[in-house]
Amino acid sequence: MKLDAIIAPVQEELKSFETHFRRSLRSDVGLVDAVVRYMVKRKGKRIRPALVLLSAAACGGIHETTYRGAALVELLHTATLIHDDVVDDAGTRRGWPSINAIWKNKVSVLLGDYVLARGLLLSLENEDIAFLHSTSIAVKRMSEGELLQIQKSRQMNTDEKTYFRIIGDKTASLLATCCEIGARSATEDTETIERLRAYGEALGIAFQIRDDILDFLGTEATIGKPVGGDLKEKKLTLPLIHAFQNAPSSERKRVLRALKSGVRRKDIKEIVAFVQKYSGIIYAEKVANEYRDRAIETLRDLPDSEARHSLTVLADFVVARKK
Amino acid sequence: MKLDAIIAPVQEELKSFETHFRRSLRSDVGLVDAVVRYMVKRKGKRIRPALVLLSAAACGGIHETTYRGAALVELLHTATLIHDDVVDDAGTRRGWPSINAIWKNKVSVLLGDYVLARGLLLSLENEDIAFLHSTSIAVKRMSEGELLQIQKSRQMNTDEKTYFRIIGDKTASLLATCCEIGARSATEDTETIERLRAYGEALGIAFQIRDDILDFLGTEATIGKPVGGDLKEKKLTLPLIHAFQNAPSSERKRVLRALKSGVRRKDIKEIVAFVQKYSGIIYAEKVANEYRDRAIETLRDLPDSEARHSLTVLADFVVARKK
Repeated sequence: MKLDAIIAPVQEELKSFETHFRRSLRSDVGLVDAVVRYMVKRKGKRIRPALVLLSAAACGGIHETTYRGAALVELLHTATLIHDDVVDDAGTRRGWPSINAIWKNKVSVLLGDYVLARGLLLSLENEDIAFLHSTSIAVKRMSEGELLQIQKSRQMNTDEKTYFRIIGDKTASLLATCCEIGARSATEDTETIERLRAYGEALGIAFQIRDDILDFLGTEATIGKPVGGDLKEKKLTLPLIHAFQNAPSSERKRVLRALKSGVRRKDIKEIVAFVQKYSGIIYAEKVANEYRDRAIETLRDLPDSEARHSLTVLADFVVARKK
Repeated sequence: MKLDAIIAPVQEELKSFETHFRRSLRSDVGLVDAVVRYMVKRKGKRIRPALVLLSAAACGGIHETTYRGAALVELLHTATLIHDDVVDDAGTRRGWPSINAIWKNKVSVLLGDYVLARGLLLSLENEDIAFLHSTSIAVKRMSEGELLQIQKSRQMNTDEKTYFRIIGDKTASLLATCCEIGARSATEDTETIERLRAYGEALGIAFQIRDDILDFLGTEATIGKPVGGDLKEKKLTLPLIHAFQNAPSSERKRVLRALKSGVRRKDIKEIVAFVQKYSGIIYAEKVANEYRDRAIETLRDLPDSEARHSLTVLADFVVARKK
């Protein structure tokens, strides 16, 4: 099943979402409006709003507050992307010139701040305090998780426990927030809300483990980025962490030395073989499947619906994908 | 009177503020803590927290909520500075190497996001929703004001009305928020809160007009940055806007031409003479004094106190300063 088919049950609602999203960014400053128009035109896949909408639909139905919740997470995500492009000095985003490439860094950073502030105001002015709280926790966890990853990549000593902390914070936290917000907009039942949150967290972890596996397995043509990117950045992910645990000390030290001094193409091939030899991929796939199962299990007591079905299939999709 | 003397009534409370501020940034991620420790060590003048504290003291007294409000505005301001240094590729801040110079851009941007999220959580978890609302409005106005200024500097057609919109948004909005939050933490009287907010707004406008005057009048030795910086960036500020209104069309066009093609040292001298000749400085000083008077007038009905006196003197200080 493809992603488009998975989000099909909320396809129409995603169009209404676009209206909400654009309205929340309206400004009487011409420059702001020009950049926003450009941004909306080359919009992304809206995965996060789709997750908010699917979660709401699975928990009873989509309401006006659901759209505001979806707009909040997308505004926040958009602000982050704009700032990231400045940091990475990225010339393109989604195949179009990036905002910083057209309007320069200063405008980009200010626009990121503007988008963020509009997100905060959207929630505050509608008294969606719980949405904002959940989203703020996600922002804190995302930045802390990325910073922990940077710290660990300098120290080169990530263990399995730390790995799960990092991916939970940097990836799963925002997906958990999306599902929580969707559920919260549809029901007041705290157990259901907590379950959807747990679904999003497990989904995010499964997704990230699969991402980290693909960094070893994919070919550049299928995953769209060079294999071994994590190794080049000295990021130790689950397949490698597991292989380190299984390998004799001499082999582990050799790989660590290569990583520390900066890997080349030939090293990557050797490290991939090392990871395969010590069951790193098989192990990581097993763990990803466990998180997929855990995600699906949390949906057990929800009434049957197209949306619930989509969430189930989505959990399968993230661990089975080839890119 | 010097700035230190003005904030003297809250000198002790500023020390308690530091404790609150540090506590609100505590993290179990070593890298985060290391950067935060560095940041706190080379702290700035804490003007914004001082303004929150003085406003609270003038409206009845400083409470636990006052410290949280002061921490919120300073966290926000800190996040902005960290991001600004990345944009400007600044090597130093307050005489110390900038965070991006030591830890690189990626860490800086993530840390800025982290600081911002902690500010949001501090307010949300203590249900300081009104503080957060006021601060979010300030963030929106600051970014929108700066973006409008950039737009106008490209179009070269700032009129007086637009000038006041820009400086109100980019400079006065955060000071208004500081004073409002301070008052709100001390009293529930909406008129008093509204007055303190108006004080901060007028103070900010007076401050910015003075800043813009100094860009024409100061010498590099006294203001610490080159004279004519605004002209180089094509920013039309009040002294020049007024001179344009008074000057014959031929002279106005000559100056506009010089601005458009990029001013050199010799042009700056000529433009300063042009502004003097057509009463730009005198006019801007008059307007700054009007805003000073307006600021002081808003404090009229507050009971007499050291803090109120400080706020009065501060309004004088911002329009009289030589740098």
